[in-house]
Amino acid sequence: MQYVLPRLNDAVAHIQGDFHGKDIVSLDQFSASDLHTVFSLARQMKQLALYNEPSHILEGLVVALLFFEPSSRTFGSFAAAVKRLGGQTLEIQNPEIVSSVSKGESFEDTIRVFEAYSNALVLRHSVPGAALQAAQAAEFIPVINAGDGNNEHPTQTLLDLFTLYEQFGRLDYLTGLVAGDLANSRTLHSLIRGLSLFRGNTIYLLASERLRLAPAELAAFEERGIRLIEISSEKDIPKTCNFWYWTRIQRERLAAGDDYQGLMREQVIVTPQLLKEYASPDMILLDPLPRVGTIDPSVDADPRAVYLRSQIRNGMYVRMALLALILGRA
Amino acid sequence: MQYVLPRLNDAVAHIQGDFHGKDIVSLDQFSASDLHTVFSLARQMKQLALYNEPSHILEGLVVALLFFEPSSRTFGSFAAAVKRLGGQTLEIQNPEIVSSVSKGESFEDTIRVFEAYSNALVLRHSVPGAALQAAQAAEFIPVINAGDGNNEHPTQTLLDLFTLYEQFGRLDYLTGLVAGDLANSRTLHSLIRGLSLFRGNTIYLLASERLRLAPAELAAFEERGIRLIEISSEKDIPKTCNFWYWTRIQRERLAAGDDYQGLMREQVIVTPQLLKEYASPDMILLDPLPRVGTIDPSVDADPRAVYLRSQIRNGMYVRMALLALILGRA
Amino acid sequence: MQYVLPRLNDAVAHIQGDFHGKDIVSLDQFSASDLHTVFSLARQMKQLALYNEPSHILEGLVVALLFFEPSSRTFGSFAAAVKRLGGQTLEIQNPEIVSSVSKGESFEDTIRVFEAYSNALVLRHSVPGAALQAAQAAEFIPVINAGDGNNEHPTQTLLDLFTLYEQFGRLDYLTGLVAGDLANSRTLHSLIRGLSLFRGNTIYLLASERLRLAPAELAAFEERGIRLIEISSEKDIPKTCNFWYWTRIQRERLAAGDDYQGLMREQVIVTPQLLKEYASPDMILLDPLPRVGTIDPSVDADPRAVYLRSQIRNGMYVRMALLALILGRA
Repeated sequence: MQYVLPRLNDAVAHIQGDFHGKDIVSLDQFSASDLHTVFSLARQMKQLALYNEPSHILEGLVVALLFFEPSSRTFGSFAAAVKRLGGQTLEIQNPEIVSSVSKGESFEDTIRVFEAYSNALVLRHSVPGAALQAAQAAEFIPVINAGDGNNEHPTQTLLDLFTLYEQFGRLDYLTGLVAGDLANSRTLHSLIRGLSLFRGNTIYLLASERLRLAPAELAAFEERGIRLIEISSEKDIPKTCNFWYWTRIQRERLAAGDDYQGLMREQVIVTPQLLKEYASPDMILLDPLPRVGTIDPSVDADPRAVYLRSQIRNGMYVRMALLALILGRA
Repeated sequence: MQYVLPRLNDAVAHIQGDFHGKDIVSLDQFSASDLHTVFSLARQMKQLALYNEPSHILEGLVVALLFFEPSSRTFGSFAAAVKRLGGQTLEIQNPEIVSSVSKGESFEDTIRVFEAYSNALVLRHSVPGAALQAAQAAEFIPVINAGDGNNEHPTQTLLDLFTLYEQFGRLDYLTGLVAGDLANSRTLHSLIRGLSLFRGNTIYLLASERLRLAPAELAAFEERGIRLIEISSEKDIPKTCNFWYWTRIQRERLAAGDDYQGLMREQVIVTPQLLKEYASPDMILLDPLPRVGTIDPSVDADPRAVYLRSQIRNGMYVRMALLALILGRA
Repeated sequence: MQYVLPRLNDAVAHIQGDFHGKDIVSLDQFSASDLHTVFSLARQMKQLALYNEPSHILEGLVVALLFFEPSSRTFGSFAAAVKRLGGQTLEIQNPEIVSSVSKGESFEDTIRVFEAYSNALVLRHSVPGAALQAAQAAEFIPVINAGDGNNEHPTQTLLDLFTLYEQFGRLDYLTGLVAGDLANSRTLHSLIRGLSLFRGNTIYLLASERLRLAPAELAAFEERGIRLIEISSEKDIPKTCNFWYWTRIQRERLAAGDDYQGLMREQVIVTPQLLKEYASPDMILLDPLPRVGTIDPSVDADPRAVYLRSQIRNGMYVRMALLALILGRA
């Protein structure tokens, strides 16, 4: 597999096969080969978790979960990942309890204090760039970005890609449909970037006028080598899609004048009927959750609906794999 | 032991000797024989905990503690139970950090997300019926009700019954006194229900006019086969009681017009003097705690006062037993 | 080493070589010999932590971390200490979730409830004297004071002393400079008390007029046998100091009329220039953190700057040692 590695901020490094001690700040650090390394290990982690095998892979290690912004799902996934591998967590979930911050401590000092207690640091923060800042502050241990505002959330993208990889055995020559809030969904942008690491992928984009991908972004993505096709009605969904990826309207990121309720009414919602008319029998349906106006609960029983089943679990497996790799235990 | 099993909501099952994988939503799921199974194992758990033996019973398993409502005591008891058995917890203590909820996620989706990370789910919620709803949402793992509003808190009742069982070696042919807020105490209602599973029990009820058991409830309890005798003064307490069970006024459940301070003044408070006059030497004194206007601290040193000693610890032992049973590790 | 043990509140005991089961409420419980015991073990703990050796020293034990007041640093340090030794924590970090307290439960009852679940109890509280009160309430397990208001925070002082001990191999015949908020810094007062346990120590005190040590306190410290010399300008700092200890202005403890910004402007801030002019090459620079207007970040790279490196880590090692000692596992 050959491809051009994206330009990275100087402070973080391409992985290039060597995970040990690396900060994980951006999806752009991964090559296609690096992704295969993670996914191959994630498959093993899945077996380990499914059989509830006591693991000693992270024994003796402490992973700090520093969540300056609440995120119960990501928090739970990382905490479970560490614990299922026999590691220990240091859990700082609540922004207001980081008392030293309220006393005027700099972000860098806070990071270095928790660095002193831990072997790795998982950071969630509302400010874009916070993960990079933390990675630069931490001298001795790796930092994993668990979401920094609307910037990046690389492990979310890893789990989405792993879900596709597991189902289809490959990440190239796939056709997908993404729908919902294309303008604001960080998750979706990262997924497209991830898929652009591989050849021959085509993505159909379905969104109402107001929630389309900005033209500049669309152009930037296409430059990475992925084929993007905008459609404006469910009637244009091709039956050949390998996957559908639905996203809720990011209400918290709408402009002041936007009419949330109006936009909600324009949304295409996945129903059994929609699946019947436009989906192939062996596609899968993803949603990064929480789902709000995206997929009707009557779809949950459909075997193609993986959002509440394998997709969430895959997040834990991928994080187990990544932690083992950067901590040098895999 | 033969008795008629109460009617249950179709969604939860009678245990009937088979705990593995069962949701624990209601006390009515337990037969007398099931209680003996739990209590017999709880006694072993007590030995294990007293000697601080490292246990591997829950090794490799993750138990999610989802506390949508704060309850430090119950939280601590379950957390310690899991950890003393060598298991891991996933701790979501703080309602406002369940961030996906604030983004509009349904309760069912939240439950299924945490189900994906865990082997069992302990739920505390302020809404009656939430535990049943969670048990229905969770497809693959058992749910334990750790209190759902004023509906049920089955492990509290199990620990109360275990405390009696440990002391007297039986749960039938006991005479007890219950006092305080008979109208509103969920704990008390459940205790009476639990004791009605066994033959020959008699309970004296001591409460001020306003805090008496509702006549309909009294009749319903008696129909279950327990003998209830209302008294209105401490002077009527028979010396033959095996136990006293005191409860605080549930201030948060009083009607708007109720005079809390006035009701407090009417309360009979347990003092060394009261014990001396009306309690037998081998009775035990229980209180589900927190105690507010129930038992004077000068009583604490009395060996019959078990509320701050064995009663709390018994909660941990009973929860250890129950977790081991439903997780198939006992 | 001979010296007069300070008078203690009757409720807590001098350690005198026997840590097992002892409450750790005040620095005054330690003799010089006790400190050597802790520090010698802390050195071993350091090795254990540096090599991430899985430890079973606290296996089977549960340590409750009851933080009624937020303190992310101290919380993290104790949590990591327990976990690195293979123990389990019971974490109650958030004051408002101690729900029974809000229902009117007494502090003593709360302590005894958590005592029932644990093998030791680490308490942080805003009220001076709370640790002693907890130690009296807990009948069976040791309590460690992790800071009770402006009263004591003995493990902070232990880590400061350990940092000096590690560097210089001794705690006597040292010369130090303390600066910043001498009037209000609890940490500083305790450090002076700790150093007064050993012979031949001299401390220079540098503070602006308003933030000087109260004359009565200065006299009380000197009575303990330590030599204190007040200076009023950085120009008076002798080049012979073994250590500098800087403290931020305790804004939260200033009187109503105090001008914080004005006091800040009067502060001497540690810069590379100040070190160059007044510090010896083998001194070390300490700060209990958070640092706010104390040490310029450009100093961080100086090898003498130990505040963000060994000083924080030493806190974890010292707490590991203390926990192992009082739990009878060392």
